Amino acid sequence: MSEPSAPRFLGDIPIDAARAALLQAAELACEYLEKGAAYRVLPEIAPGDVRKALPPSPPLEAEPLAAILRDYQALIEPNVTHWNHPGFMAYFATSGSAAGIVGEMLCAALNVNAMVWRSGPAPTELETLACDWLRQMLDLPAEFEGHINDTASMSSLLALAAARERAAPQTRTRGLAGTRPLTVYASEHAHSSIDKAAITLGIGLENVRRVAADDAFELRVDALADALRADRAAGLLPIAVVSTVGTTGPGSIDPTPAIAELCRAQGLWLHVDAAHAGSAGICPEYRALMPGLELADSLVVNPHKWLFTPMDCSVLLLRDPHVLRAAFAVTPEYLRTRESGVVNLMDYGPQLGRRFRALKLWMTLRAFGVRGLQQRIRYHCALARELAGWIAEDPRFELAAPAPLSLVCFRAVPDRPPEAQDGFNERLLERVNATGRVFLSHTKLNGRYVIRVAIGNLRTAEADVRTAWQAIRQAFEDESAAYRAAP
Amino acid sequence: MSEPSAPRFLGDIPIDAARAALLQAAELACEYLEKGAAYRVLPEIAPGDVRKALPPSPPLEAEPLAAILRDYQALIEPNVTHWNHPGFMAYFATSGSAAGIVGEMLCAALNVNAMVWRSGPAPTELETLACDWLRQMLDLPAEFEGHINDTASMSSLLALAAARERAAPQTRTRGLAGTRPLTVYASEHAHSSIDKAAITLGIGLENVRRVAADDAFELRVDALADALRADRAAGLLPIAVVSTVGTTGPGSIDPTPAIAELCRAQGLWLHVDAAHAGSAGICPEYRALMPGLELADSLVVNPHKWLFTPMDCSVLLLRDPHVLRAAFAVTPEYLRTRESGVVNLMDYGPQLGRRFRALKLWMTLRAFGVRGLQQRIRYHCALARELAGWIAEDPRFELAAPAPLSLVCFRAVPDRPPEAQDGFNERLLERVNATGRVFLSHTKLNGRYVIRVAIGNLRTAEADVRTAWQAIRQAFEDESAAYRAAP
Repeated sequence: MSEPSAPRFLGDIPIDAARAALLQAAELACEYLEKGAAYRVLPEIAPGDVRKALPPSPPLEAEPLAAILRDYQALIEPNVTHWNHPGFMAYFATSGSAAGIVGEMLCAALNVNAMVWRSGPAPTELETLACDWLRQMLDLPAEFEGHINDTASMSSLLALAAARERAAPQTRTRGLAGTRPLTVYASEHAHSSIDKAAITLGIGLENVRRVAADDAFELRVDALADALRADRAAGLLPIAVVSTVGTTGPGSIDPTPAIAELCRAQGLWLHVDAAHAGSAGICPEYRALMPGLELADSLVVNPHKWLFTPMDCSVLLLRDPHVLRAAFAVTPEYLRTRESGVVNLMDYGPQLGRRFRALKLWMTLRAFGVRGLQQRIRYHCALARELAGWIAEDPRFELAAPAPLSLVCFRAVPDRPPEAQDGFNERLLERVNATGRVFLSHTKLNGRYVIRVAIGNLRTAEADVRTAWQAIRQAFEDESAAYRAAP
Repeated sequence: MSEPSAPRFLGDIPIDAARAALLQAAELACEYLEKGAAYRVLPEIAPGDVRKALPPSPPLEAEPLAAILRDYQALIEPNVTHWNHPGFMAYFATSGSAAGIVGEMLCAALNVNAMVWRSGPAPTELETLACDWLRQMLDLPAEFEGHINDTASMSSLLALAAARERAAPQTRTRGLAGTRPLTVYASEHAHSSIDKAAITLGIGLENVRRVAADDAFELRVDALADALRADRAAGLLPIAVVSTVGTTGPGSIDPTPAIAELCRAQGLWLHVDAAHAGSAGICPEYRALMPGLELADSLVVNPHKWLFTPMDCSVLLLRDPHVLRAAFAVTPEYLRTRESGVVNLMDYGPQLGRRFRALKLWMTLRAFGVRGLQQRIRYHCALARELAGWIAEDPRFELAAPAPLSLVCFRAVPDRPPEAQDGFNERLLERVNATGRVFLSHTKLNGRYVIRVAIGNLRTAEADVRTAWQAIRQAFEDESAAYRAAP
């Protein structure tokens, strides 16, 4: 290393530059949280605009972080969709709280990879602890053990992998070739991640039975029983039922206790997808709306959805984590450690690497406290009830689904032929979103276009819901006027 | 909302408290980066210590962030394994650079979920751009398109899912039941994530053919050809071969061009797992050691491993991303957007939710520049050559594998019977790690215990490698003395 031409130690950027950049980033983060509402929720850009504004090739030489942060401010921050905006009411509104942002920053500084206990002792133990706190908040029995995944998609995939392991343990070694088709059952309103899990796991889309729902969009247990009977008669192997507590479209809650009874009688794995609505289960009055969570074999709740933890943080609670470990534990020599009886998080799924996601969850739960989280969820649900009341009272609109929590589905009912109603609502939604003050999304229920208002952002106040309602009514007027003016 | 008992808006913690906490966290992060070396790399704690020190139940009331950060400093930071420590040379040493930490903090503040272009325009476009920068740095043809996953495990899983889609497209709908067994080929030294992907995808562990390697630990193409022939004769359906560029155990580089020729001739998907060593491919002289990357159907390189980007950031480059989308695209009504022809990142795998990981990658690539990254990688490889030289010159030790890049595998060769050698090395490693000054890991090669020194941490300097070498020689002396002293 002594030759003059030999490489020399350079390390990270100088610590003074690092400190200046980190402090500036902290300021930028605060300013963003403060001024977020000044942005349009949806930026006014066309596909390709951002990429065109950036150099097509990487820089040869180092650039100062101040310059990079200038570009961030000019090109990136303004051109994201502002999920932290109080007017964000699309999909499921999520929020990164300040406590969670602090957690993410420290997670990145530590940069621990808690694949085995030894490579991340505190991260491993904090993950099991934070998940247990959540378990207690949801009033679930002590036998449930949790771990954190990136998304509910992955949590549900692992739940179905565990179901596959229990029903067809030879899959781990021999795969699914030669097995009779496995089948999975979920409501017609269950999330698309169930379909994607079935693709991934080699089960196949066709073997996800989308069971009919009733008028309240809740899975019909009689239809489930029929489907199971027919599949067994056809020689298929049912392995699991997904009960959705808070469907993405209408927000309905499947009858978990009756589903659980069927599962118990038939030896089926019961997975409860409470990714969004499960957070409301920390309030006793809303937990009462979701009976039977305690009967699940697995349950997913995403603190990154409605417990103010930044993306990504999806908690999978398992009654018997052994089944998941039996499916996934593979320990090559280079990952063997001398500790025995410890949790090695790599055993819980296909991924080896693990971020220290528990840090932000632990910090967020503490920064708000259980009561603080309950208060915010109750406020969101109260806002939704208020909006639902306004909609119900206005003859130009109708509610399209019950709104037990904070998701309100409705449609405009203009004086038009039935076949023109959907188009009217679609254009109305475009008009609302074009205001830039709110962002709503849509779905279809019973084949008809429906507008969704998902209240759940930490920063959303009553004024924002009034703004949304005002924008909706104005859009109704404008769309009606445009129709009258059309040749 | 006017009743006095109705919930009221509370929002996030007050912005002044948020600012104070974010600035304090930025300071803590800087102090950690500065003082990291003052910690023992491996904390001296026993399983359960951290969890016991924390309240078993969540707090009812909110706690100030200052108090939470005090607990973080007292209980969490000291009890992680210090991956950012200059003495961390276990597994594959990874680093979070200051630029990457800045990126993660802003990612958390924006909290964008770029599942579709519309829900994250800049994040989607920056992801494709940053991956294209990496493609150029690796001198790969323009047809490769990249996206970011959490881990190489997931990237390789998706690559094999694409291979499955191409070879057996009916899997998406009908699953693998009734299909003849699919088989996947990889070196005996390939990563365990290939096994886990086979479990997940329903292919099965038994259908991963671990192909014998030669004396340099490189996959034997003749053995691969034999395995393929035998499997085809047995009626199995080979779908993919994994060529590992930088195996986890010995760091060997499989002969990708010859493997690619076989793949082309037999219509097999070629996945290159260059998760760690691929980063060195940004230096022309190391890229020359990994010919044939350009022949892959898919290639994984983890910037979170050796391009100083905090966990998690694994780039999967695909020659034809259409195949992956064909497997995974499922668009329910509530995710339909009006933009056409855009990249919707949800189509590239089972997960719907997507963090804005591109931000930290883009910031890191700019903060160092291509030359800055090359310099650091060259320095690490030079350190490894130096260490390998010291080992080669010391008769008490022997190199256990070639060290083309920055991973050095060796063992002590004490004057003991063959059956005592492994135990000696194992105890030697425990002694080295017990110093707290460095952390090394191990593997087995040709059935024998081998110590691995993985140099790749941004903060590792020549003095740290000298410290490691000194600790290794001291441990040899101590272990020899303990043996002599034993009754």
